[in-house]
Amino acid sequence: MNAPAAVSHLLPAIALRPVPQALLDALAQRFGAQCSTAQAVREQHGRDEGSLQAPPPSAVVFAQSTQDVQDAIRLAAQHDVPVIPYAAGSSLEGHLLAVQGGISLDLNRMNRVLRINAEDLTVTVQPGITRKQLNEAIKDTGLFFPIDPGADASIGGMAATRASGTNAVRYGTMRENVLALEVVMASGDAIRTGTRAKKSSAGYDLTRLMVGSEGTLGVMTEITVRLYPLPEAVSAAICSFPSIEAAVRTVIQTIQLGVPIARCELIDAHSVRMVNQHSKLGLREEPLLLMEFHGSPASVQEQAETVQAIAHEFGGNAFEWATTPEERTRLWTARHNAYFAAIQSRPGCQAISTDTCVPISRLADCLLESIQEADASGVPYFLVGHVGDGNFHFGYLIDPAVPEERVRAERLNHQLVARALGMGGTCTGEHGVGIHKMGFLLDEAGAGAVGVMRAIKQALDPKNILNPGKIFAV
Amino acid sequence: MNAPAAVSHLLPAIALRPVPQALLDALAQRFGAQCSTAQAVREQHGRDEGSLQAPPPSAVVFAQSTQDVQDAIRLAAQHDVPVIPYAAGSSLEGHLLAVQGGISLDLNRMNRVLRINAEDLTVTVQPGITRKQLNEAIKDTGLFFPIDPGADASIGGMAATRASGTNAVRYGTMRENVLALEVVMASGDAIRTGTRAKKSSAGYDLTRLMVGSEGTLGVMTEITVRLYPLPEAVSAAICSFPSIEAAVRTVIQTIQLGVPIARCELIDAHSVRMVNQHSKLGLREEPLLLMEFHGSPASVQEQAETVQAIAHEFGGNAFEWATTPEERTRLWTARHNAYFAAIQSRPGCQAISTDTCVPISRLADCLLESIQEADASGVPYFLVGHVGDGNFHFGYLIDPAVPEERVRAERLNHQLVARALGMGGTCTGEHGVGIHKMGFLLDEAGAGAVGVMRAIKQALDPKNILNPGKIFAV
Repeated sequence: MNAPAAVSHLLPAIALRPVPQALLDALAQRFGAQCSTAQAVREQHGRDEGSLQAPPPSAVVFAQSTQDVQDAIRLAAQHDVPVIPYAAGSSLEGHLLAVQGGISLDLNRMNRVLRINAEDLTVTVQPGITRKQLNEAIKDTGLFFPIDPGADASIGGMAATRASGTNAVRYGTMRENVLALEVVMASGDAIRTGTRAKKSSAGYDLTRLMVGSEGTLGVMTEITVRLYPLPEAVSAAICSFPSIEAAVRTVIQTIQLGVPIARCELIDAHSVRMVNQHSKLGLREEPLLLMEFHGSPASVQEQAETVQAIAHEFGGNAFEWATTPEERTRLWTARHNAYFAAIQSRPGCQAISTDTCVPISRLADCLLESIQEADASGVPYFLVGHVGDGNFHFGYLIDPAVPEERVRAERLNHQLVARALGMGGTCTGEHGVGIHKMGFLLDEAGAGAVGVMRAIKQALDPKNILNPGKIFAV
Repeated sequence: MNAPAAVSHLLPAIALRPVPQALLDALAQRFGAQCSTAQAVREQHGRDEGSLQAPPPSAVVFAQSTQDVQDAIRLAAQHDVPVIPYAAGSSLEGHLLAVQGGISLDLNRMNRVLRINAEDLTVTVQPGITRKQLNEAIKDTGLFFPIDPGADASIGGMAATRASGTNAVRYGTMRENVLALEVVMASGDAIRTGTRAKKSSAGYDLTRLMVGSEGTLGVMTEITVRLYPLPEAVSAAICSFPSIEAAVRTVIQTIQLGVPIARCELIDAHSVRMVNQHSKLGLREEPLLLMEFHGSPASVQEQAETVQAIAHEFGGNAFEWATTPEERTRLWTARHNAYFAAIQSRPGCQAISTDTCVPISRLADCLLESIQEADASGVPYFLVGHVGDGNFHFGYLIDPAVPEERVRAERLNHQLVARALGMGGTCTGEHGVGIHKMGFLLDEAGAGAVGVMRAIKQALDPKNILNPGKIFAV
């Protein structure tokens, strides 16, 4: 099977690396029923939620322990065969595609909570646990794990892509919240990085080197993350605005004043319409900010009053409040489902999702110019954003059967990334590089920095077996 | 000149690498008066605030630009000669010692503020600027840079050691506050890492790999850090306790409740006495917590009331308030001078400073066992701690002319580190590894993780010219 056009137009043509029968036999012998070569299983593990495609992996190993991960990697290394870690499958950037062939390492069965240290506000988990499973497991502790990408992603996948979500404006991203790791390296050896201490100056920061390395430097088998006390008071508010600009100016001033807002999400009128249809909400179909305030009752009230006063200055309507936990959950679930709501709004469509993030002072310019460009192009789109962080996503809705639609969407994406980089921003705030943004990374970081990344990859994975062909071309 | 005993008892004996006259000639030709081989200049650049000693570097280059740094490194690389970056000289761990010989690269003249982006809460500086110079330069913006190690360290040195200080419990360390870098690599090429966007998933986190790499992977020539709005209200309080345990239990409960305290420092009765003498303060000579609260007036009051109630439970006295900015400055200056106050309390002494950091639930056990041990040893000491982070420093005061004193102090340090590691902590919360803690790092991270660090070093600095002999033995 040849690599389909969607990949080959982005990548230099790379031959699939052979997966010898001897490896498949060795995996079957070592893993028995934990290894599958069934077509349906392989196909399920050969794709993600993004729009790119590649041939599926040759086999899938369902790891149940660190030892399983070590053995699978050692066997693959003996045959120079790529290993692609897999859990929730919710990447948007082609991270899970076997672009050079190889085997998929499914970590979903490694989904246990290993140690809750409630007094220290930390928990140690296996990589396959999802963010919702984790929060369910710790719900009796009075603590929560705030990082929430749209999908119910795995903690391993979130660490590997340096994910964030709606709470990052207050609680940070996986970069700030992963304390320690156990990682299986390309040799099959496991190392530990970091400790449970809140800070450390003990040598190179291998934890943060692994976080965001997209499975290319090692496979995480234990992850220690920070937890936070459930806030004493929580208050969510919706505010509609006469324009996106008015909403964004409100956000900028809120951040510059140092208001410790917990969530600050923009959704444009298109997205509101899609979300209303999908989640049966009756939100006003205007640009909205969805906000949440955490703290003591007095502090929450103070924050809300400050932001309401700012919003008022920019023509925002009075806040509508989601006061009960149920109302709040309904609201944020709807926000998290915006991507799926958009996909469903145009049957058979795919979304090309952008992920730029800019310094807050440039957010209005970046958004408004990009909206103008998207409107002029005629490409249907939705727009949502973690605007408190300067991060937003256009989703260009294309018909995959019409190649020109993809070309037009990708052109918009290129123009947006160029604009964001020119403003001191990044091509990816939270989704990662994967296959899709390798060219953008080169534009952003420059050949020198990408060369340093490549040198590190070469030093730690000399056979290039760990999720090869991602982040940078080989 | 041979390496003195202080170094050789910690390091495998490593021969000084030759510094050929041809290099000194080339440096003199390229740098003219910006290069010195004067004995006094070399000696000043061959030591730091710690107790270790080594022969001085063969020359000192005073860099004024990124180009100067590039040229100095390229010339040194041609001759396989080590390059040791130098700025404030305030390391405690031997970071600045030319243990393999080489040249010192003085960055003090690179101390400009390059770009203030007040709206984005960021500033870009050269590495030689000190934290006080930086805060002076931005004082009209309504923003401040919170990271404050005891010394008036350079921002470059602070980034290189992943430093923190008294504000880290609220504002994080250099790990959380460096956004982007320009770094000159061992090849002499300059790369850029990170952007001014608040978050990013764009490839390997080279920024955080460089932060804490102690000059062994590259020399930082531009540093972009986060700033914070000056809090609307600030309130500092002193509270004395009947015992260290009572003070520490107060801290633990404060942190576990999620109170966003801005500073939370323990000083023991010995240190209070030394600080009183040095800074002419009349603090009660009992274990004290020095605290600071930042926020809106209402929030500051709420935080202070919460902590006062907790302190009261553990027998703490009523808070004494430092309400004016002058009183607060006097208090924190005294805290920052604790190290120097201690040194002066025993004329001619040196301090062996410990730097362990443990998960907060183990802080009381770790401190109390270590105090008992220190008291039993008869070694005079002082104790201060950023206890909100679980980080504390014993300073064992030794007479450098009496070798047994050093041996006893180092034994205490070993026991303390072993205890902290056993509790899930780290050997260094903020001072870095340098020469002094190479053995501790191996204990903490394990041979596997240190092997990964070494592989990265080898890949990025194949001639081992950048501050060699630090973090791990070569």
